[in-house]
Amino acid sequence: MATIDFFGASAGPWWVCDMRGICGEPLAEVDAIDIRSADDVPPAMAAWCLRGVVSNLRYAERNELQRLQAVQPALQRPEARCAVLIPIRKSAAWWALAQDERRAIFERDSHHTQIGLDYLPAIARKLHHSRDLGEPFDFLTWFEFAPEHAPDFDALLARLRATREWSYVEREVEIRLRRAG
Amino acid sequence: MATIDFFGASAGPWWVCDMRGICGEPLAEVDAIDIRSADDVPPAMAAWCLRGVVSNLRYAERNELQRLQAVQPALQRPEARCAVLIPIRKSAAWWALAQDERRAIFERDSHHTQIGLDYLPAIARKLHHSRDLGEPFDFLTWFEFAPEHAPDFDALLARLRATREWSYVEREVEIRLRRAG
Repeated sequence: MATIDFFGASAGPWWVCDMRGICGEPLAEVDAIDIRSADDVPPAMAAWCLRGVVSNLRYAERNELQRLQAVQPALQRPEARCAVLIPIRKSAAWWALAQDERRAIFERDSHHTQIGLDYLPAIARKLHHSRDLGEPFDFLTWFEFAPEHAPDFDALLARLRATREWSYVEREVEIRLRRAG
Repeated sequence: MATIDFFGASAGPWWVCDMRGICGEPLAEVDAIDIRSADDVPPAMAAWCLRGVVSNLRYAERNELQRLQAVQPALQRPEARCAVLIPIRKSAAWWALAQDERRAIFERDSHHTQIGLDYLPAIARKLHHSRDLGEPFDFLTWFEFAPEHAPDFDALLARLRATREWSYVEREVEIRLRRAG
């Protein structure tokens, strides 16, 4: 399982439109994001690199997984010219919770999966796990959508950030991107 | 979160008494295990290195966590001169299951936590997660106990291997150790 490496660089296939620290320490501003596999040659002159892996599901139950699989699109649809990379880190208090406590906050209280489903298939989403890699963030979430769905993405993000789950987020950066060319 | 690195070497603080492949590809035979943090200098002449991290719980619920915390001892008790390192890898079929399905097999069907509790505080246990690191094994479990509890450890192991959960184990190696000196 090779890592997926997100390089903050001066050039790359995804141009940065807007980049902001939401909470905690921000990341150095960059002009572009270049995504490589750990097996690839890294780009020259990257300001930073965030690594993650596509891993097993941690909370989704079978019925939720089936609903997700029925509607979630592939990445790299031609019309999906917008992307957003959101690295987050959760607090030590979150990670000290037992599995049933985290699940209850994640879905029963915060409706995390249900909120994502409400915006599928328009807003494609891919989660990368970073915590076990000793990275500065726990998760790197990548969203892709067509420009006309940008308001839907804004609504999704506002709903997630208003949840009880988000009270455990102690570092978050939002990087809005456009496909180059 | 630095990795914990288990080196199979020709010398080290834990001497290998017995080493056997239980299923799947075995590991090269070594004379000793040397455990280092990723921040330490690695031993010279290691035959192999298995890396893991102490991560958050994936299945234990609050009531189980409280029962575990009430009885689990620290590692490195002076009387705990026996240790066993058991690296395992589970199948793709396991990892494709949803969280509720894995939990049901893990505890409702297999009583994984309950079996461990039955041998506490005699058999101390520490779980290291390796899967997200791209390692050859998913988990490295380290057990420590006094020589007189070796039969209890054998019983624990036999009970775990007879569970439904273990039908998903596709690679397993058992390394029995004695503290050097």
